[in-house]
Amino acid sequence: MNYLLIRNILGKIMILTAILMSVSLIFCIGYQEKLINYLSFIIPIILLLVIGNLLKMKKPEKYKILAKEGFVIVGLSWIIIALFGCLPFVISREIPNFIDAFFEMSSGFTTTGASILSGAEAEALSHSIKFWRTFSHWIGGMGVLVFILAIIPESKDGSSVHILRAESPGPQVGKIVSKMQASSRILYLIYLGMTIIEFVLLWAGPDQKMDFFSSLIYSLGTAGTGGFSIHADGIAYFSAYSQYVIAIFMILFGINFTLYYYLLIGNIKDVYKNKELRWYLTIVLISITIIFISIYPMYNNIEETFRLAFFQVGTIISTTGYATADFNLWPSVAKCVILILMVFGATAGSTAGGMKISRVKILVKSSIKKVKNMINPRKIEVVTYEGKPLENDVIEGVQSFFLVYVMVLIVCTLLISVDNFDMTTNITASLSCISNIGPGLEKVGPAGSYADFSAFSKIVLSIEMIAGRLELFPILILFSPKTWLE
Amino acid sequence: MNYLLIRNILGKIMILTAILMSVSLIFCIGYQEKLINYLSFIIPIILLLVIGNLLKMKKPEKYKILAKEGFVIVGLSWIIIALFGCLPFVISREIPNFIDAFFEMSSGFTTTGASILSGAEAEALSHSIKFWRTFSHWIGGMGVLVFILAIIPESKDGSSVHILRAESPGPQVGKIVSKMQASSRILYLIYLGMTIIEFVLLWAGPDQKMDFFSSLIYSLGTAGTGGFSIHADGIAYFSAYSQYVIAIFMILFGINFTLYYYLLIGNIKDVYKNKELRWYLTIVLISITIIFISIYPMYNNIEETFRLAFFQVGTIISTTGYATADFNLWPSVAKCVILILMVFGATAGSTAGGMKISRVKILVKSSIKKVKNMINPRKIEVVTYEGKPLENDVIEGVQSFFLVYVMVLIVCTLLISVDNFDMTTNITASLSCISNIGPGLEKVGPAGSYADFSAFSKIVLSIEMIAGRLELFPILILFSPKTWLE
Repeated sequence: MNYLLIRNILGKIMILTAILMSVSLIFCIGYQEKLINYLSFIIPIILLLVIGNLLKMKKPEKYKILAKEGFVIVGLSWIIIALFGCLPFVISREIPNFIDAFFEMSSGFTTTGASILSGAEAEALSHSIKFWRTFSHWIGGMGVLVFILAIIPESKDGSSVHILRAESPGPQVGKIVSKMQASSRILYLIYLGMTIIEFVLLWAGPDQKMDFFSSLIYSLGTAGTGGFSIHADGIAYFSAYSQYVIAIFMILFGINFTLYYYLLIGNIKDVYKNKELRWYLTIVLISITIIFISIYPMYNNIEETFRLAFFQVGTIISTTGYATADFNLWPSVAKCVILILMVFGATAGSTAGGMKISRVKILVKSSIKKVKNMINPRKIEVVTYEGKPLENDVIEGVQSFFLVYVMVLIVCTLLISVDNFDMTTNITASLSCISNIGPGLEKVGPAGSYADFSAFSKIVLSIEMIAGRLELFPILILFSPKTWLE
Repeated sequence: MNYLLIRNILGKIMILTAILMSVSLIFCIGYQEKLINYLSFIIPIILLLVIGNLLKMKKPEKYKILAKEGFVIVGLSWIIIALFGCLPFVISREIPNFIDAFFEMSSGFTTTGASILSGAEAEALSHSIKFWRTFSHWIGGMGVLVFILAIIPESKDGSSVHILRAESPGPQVGKIVSKMQASSRILYLIYLGMTIIEFVLLWAGPDQKMDFFSSLIYSLGTAGTGGFSIHADGIAYFSAYSQYVIAIFMILFGINFTLYYYLLIGNIKDVYKNKELRWYLTIVLISITIIFISIYPMYNNIEETFRLAFFQVGTIISTTGYATADFNLWPSVAKCVILILMVFGATAGSTAGGMKISRVKILVKSSIKKVKNMINPRKIEVVTYEGKPLENDVIEGVQSFFLVYVMVLIVCTLLISVDNFDMTTNITASLSCISNIGPGLEKVGPAGSYADFSAFSKIVLSIEMIAGRLELFPILILFSPKTWLE
């Protein structure tokens, strides 16, 4: 293992985190906050800069990154940014307990949006802390290491693809253009551009309650498919206009960013032909229809029912986690659809979590193939993906991913069940964390919070969120003795 | 498709069902029951004999069975025996509603043990009906078609293996001896022998409450890993001795019958070396330990706590479904362990349902392989099973099975959620039915029943039970348009 290289990259990550954290100071100044708020950012920034520079002082001899090192770097980076990112909460005493703050920041960077704060408690935070809490969604949405790749020179042999692969969601990661660095930059520009468009639509819209700060917070949170709210009533506090804007952008940020690049360069044909996108939109439509029918008797108003169904489907399938209704109170059919969407997630190459539609598609198709194969064993059935036949090891990889996903889900559910909450709470909390959604059902429903879990369970769920965001393998490899013994 | 052959075998199945049903008449006579009870068996017996003989009248030209026909025969047979098997309930008015009776008999033949009757209602049934209800467990445990194979002459080319394969649980079906018919007979003899031993241990034991009829019912029910109880308090009604006997036999009937054959012929080495058995016993021990620790504070008595943990682990992992405690009231950790055991099931080649330990083992091993492969992509990792390397298509088959299992589980949970019960009830009812266990949690917990589900949900759950018993594919193939169009 190339320890010097790992140290070097971790150092860079810490310096980057310091730079990103310093943006929060603008809000300390702008809102004339107390001295402790300034210090709560300045102290960790200094810590990060000192340790970061110490780590990267000694230059590695080789810059080649193997698959194992890619996973280790990504896994460690995410744990480190959550550990340091939570210091402002602890120092400012806005979330005095370290474990609580670590949970909140793991939830932030992984774009989960599960909070130990109630809506009212989140509303009472200082502006600088509110900003940092949501900014972590935006940072984590696209990935910190992708950011590093976008700004630092690429290693000549292109081995940094292992980092991108380990951090980016989805079964297959393709470079958009031939150079990795250029690809990362394009992705970040699209991400930034779409965030700005949403911000303008919210701020310039007719909704009086949607002021500058709220528009900023909710557009950053939507972009990262995060979900931390800063109002006691969540998005229900805002007008129908703002709710529609946020709902539409949640669904848009669940779409593979490569397709936006295609749109930008005028390649509309490839967007139109993209089957994952069709599946995604079809699932959205079917879910809205089922939920609309099942909840209509509760609201008796077509526009309101549609808006609630649309928003909640958007928030869950994109794994954002904002809410305009307490779906905990909905009929079982609607809850069941929401649970299924929690497993699905949105498309690969977006900022969303979950299994990803492309994986679900491959799993469904390979099962149908299996049944067809049993009916007629001599006819060879081929699973296709985006029109091309899929190789067996890709199918096997997706099936293994699903297996590992279920196992991590089961183990974490078992571990947090020591807190003796009801089974629905345990299962949905674990599911919501691994899929980076935020709310679950019962105690962790849209109106609830994760505050009552024990410190042990909060650590388990934090690790589960990070494992989920990095698509499991980096964290599993980090905890595997084999990684360190060889 | 060889329709004549399918008709012929279905005819034989119906005649066999008539013969098996006539055993119940002994209890009508023995307990001097009312005329309607005699008629409730005689009418379906006549119906079965007439239709059965009509179906098998026209002899097929070819006896060759292809895989597809094997699945169709098995799928149709099981639906037919449940449809006719429920007539005694309807005619005797002991379960007057046809859908309810169909649910009860699907549950019976599939050895699920999920009942629409409460404990007290089951206790109030006539003896002949009680016997038929539990006898269906015993018939379904080993499989009706295996029985046919054991008594009718084998087709010369050995293609009847497709039937055995479609009906028998487990990823791999091996013949014990070279001839299929001889293998089936050996299995049935072991099954019968073990049932008799349990019956004698119960009847001749010190428990005064365990009379002849109860000993018969509970040994038949344990052998098939069924779970229908005929006492309001379930097995808790009996003494600790009877509870231990039943618990031990539940675990024994969850073990691959081939291993008993090895024991009989003195091949102890192969039993000792069997890794699935070791996994099974290890999982039993770990589960008992966790549950013991978590429920000890509730009972404060070492022997009682151990007995409760032992019995409930045995009943769930063997997918029997008897209960001596309402685990619905246990702490979440214990409930979580029970839920996990519900997915696992016992070993392949036993009468139990669920995923089967061998599949769980292959799934866990292939996931570990995947993680190892990612750490070191150049080293080829091999998954072994019982000491031999597993071929990729076996692993792929098991992964596909798991996928299909999860999908059927999800779809059925969604369908039954229209009844608007809580999510824990919906999920565990669906899980309990697909794994052929019986009880779930909340409304369908050990103290509850399936009575409150709508007729629609009862049909869904009945089909799910049959699909689960036949390991999914026969029922999926039966419902696949492709099967009938070609």
